[in-house]
Amino acid sequence: MRGAGVRYPTALVALIRELGRLPGIGPKSAQRLAFYLFNQPEEDVTRLAHAIRDAKASLDRCPRCFNVMTRGEPACAVCSDPQRERSVLCVVEQPADVLAIERSGEYRGLYHVLHGALSPMNGIGPDQLTVAALMERAAGAEIGEVILATSTTVEGEATAMYLGKQLGEGGLRISRIAYGLPMGGDLEYADEVTLGRAISHRRPL
Amino acid sequence: MRGAGVRYPTALVALIRELGRLPGIGPKSAQRLAFYLFNQPEEDVTRLAHAIRDAKASLDRCPRCFNVMTRGEPACAVCSDPQRERSVLCVVEQPADVLAIERSGEYRGLYHVLHGALSPMNGIGPDQLTVAALMERAAGAEIGEVILATSTTVEGEATAMYLGKQLGEGGLRISRIAYGLPMGGDLEYADEVTLGRAISHRRPL
Repeated sequence: MRGAGVRYPTALVALIRELGRLPGIGPKSAQRLAFYLFNQPEEDVTRLAHAIRDAKASLDRCPRCFNVMTRGEPACAVCSDPQRERSVLCVVEQPADVLAIERSGEYRGLYHVLHGALSPMNGIGPDQLTVAALMERAAGAEIGEVILATSTTVEGEATAMYLGKQLGEGGLRISRIAYGLPMGGDLEYADEVTLGRAISHRRPL
Repeated sequence: MRGAGVRYPTALVALIRELGRLPGIGPKSAQRLAFYLFNQPEEDVTRLAHAIRDAKASLDRCPRCFNVMTRGEPACAVCSDPQRERSVLCVVEQPADVLAIERSGEYRGLYHVLHGALSPMNGIGPDQLTVAALMERAAGAEIGEVILATSTTVEGEATAMYLGKQLGEGGLRISRIAYGLPMGGDLEYADEVTLGRAISHRRPL
């Protein structure tokens, strides 16, 4: 505090600072969260702190696809599943995308998690992602198709284009997830780029 | 996950659940935060977990004004300051409001933190707040004025009205913070209630 010299207790200042480092949490939200925690029962707060430490300590990246997995296991749940088709790789940006695609129930192959998208402006090139490992996997005899399921942002598109070019030399089938209208969406609320794609990529009924 | 039977590791599910309990953090944000923490260096994550536990363990409510203070101290920074005017009480909803008023540099008296506002719909009556303690303090011989600085929401207004009525019987000067236009605000963007108040509460220049 200015002037009056009155300050928050040190522990509170530290908590607000640490919470404020989280993505999407500004100084105001950090302060609100800190006071919320201050007013919660001790056991709830301990459970949160424990969950944070425990998650960090017991999670790891799958050595094959870089999805999230329990530390010490040989591979993630998808890679370990003998029922999955081993000839298709679906390339996504984040572990959360794996779950999203799994929820759709439309995919039975394996994944490859890049842990980001190319973004030269932010210093993120192929070396900051798991691109080299993807190239190695895609070169394996058992892989016949790679689906590029990076997001449809500028970075995701650029990443898909880059990977398509790199992978295209190997004689693999390369595909990009479909662009079009989201389900349950009104045409009048769709943006013009999406609508344009939905028309140019139309499919025979 | 449905169908495929693929799930997140237990530690990740637990972390997402605990983060999702925080106010203003929905399931999607909780998942995003969890993956963010997974990708952070161990020391940063430990520091966050430690800050949470430490804040909870080392903070307490001031026994006089219910502001936040370091546990074990006799009173909060404001109550302990011999320079403060002890004849005025400023009643606020939350400890964060104390800091906001301190920042303005306009107030030199003491505070009383209610830890909420009256909200009968949510089961919050005077007994869920620090109203009884406020009445006791306000009855003390040294207090001459009480400023009601609860927020200008429906609940804050109702709380100010209720407290004004209760305190009015003691012969104290009771005031409510001023309503009006925020500084730096364009008239055309002010809502009609605020603008109405700004006109009806106009002051001679």
